Amino acid sequence: MCCYYCNDEEKLNSLMLPISKLRTSTAYLFRDQKYKGKCIVVFNEHKTELFQLTPTQQLEFIQDVADVAATVHKVFSPDKINYAIYGDVVSHLHFHVTPKYKNGPQWGMPFKDDSRPVILSEEEYSKRIREIKLLLNVGE
Amino acid sequence: MCCYYCNDEEKLNSLMLPISKLRTSTAYLFRDQKYKGKCIVVFNEHKTELFQLTPTQQLEFIQDVADVAATVHKVFSPDKINYAIYGDVVSHLHFHVTPKYKNGPQWGMPFKDDSRPVILSEEEYSKRIREIKLLLNVGE
Repeated sequence: MCCYYCNDEEKLNSLMLPISKLRTSTAYLFRDQKYKGKCIVVFNEHKTELFQLTPTQQLEFIQDVADVAATVHKVFSPDKINYAIYGDVVSHLHFHVTPKYKNGPQWGMPFKDDSRPVILSEEEYSKRIREIKLLLNVGE
Repeated sequence: MCCYYCNDEEKLNSLMLPISKLRTSTAYLFRDQKYKGKCIVVFNEHKTELFQLTPTQQLEFIQDVADVAATVHKVFSPDKINYAIYGDVVSHLHFHVTPKYKNGPQWGMPFKDDSRPVILSEEEYSKRIREIKLLLNVGE
């Protein structure tokens, strides 16, 4: 199966960095940090639609997403969080947890990942991951 | 509170038409049907972030969204469903349940609601709502 969430760690690593395993998914820090604190929450199995999950998986997935959003909210103080599953082409279920800021890009509009990325140093990524991990109480 | 989901039925009705009350939310057919079958699932209380909900509310909300997506999938046979909560400006929690088609608008990209809308006759809206209601087994 040609899915980089399942089979291509190198490609995945070029886009995002692992933060933590959660109940039924894994949280990553998105390398493009134009939305400061943006994370991706990837469902652990290869499923493509929310209605393919069992009720337990649905609950655990939404709790994982809510926990990541709450943590991003505490660490980076955005004005709103956007949550989205797209995946027309790369269909493995993953939520974009995207902090939005009143004075930041695309405020009041859907976020976009097709403009020039904001790339940080590895040290800065590590710092953000540490800050998030510190407040992300996995499994609570 | 200036929220049209809470306080302005006329404004709400200009954008979407009610389909059914669900467990913890209400499903609407979006009037702009450029994404054939697009629905909005609105949380019944005024909350603005997923992490403000109790675990029961989180489960019921995601189940409502999954049920609407499954039904839209059965009725309209899209190639993928997109699911998104934005709400920078109108923050009352609501999911866009947006069917995407390989030969339709924004395939492979985030959906957009800022281009020319596709408006149907009232009869055609009623037909789509009937089709969705018929397969939407509320509370299962």
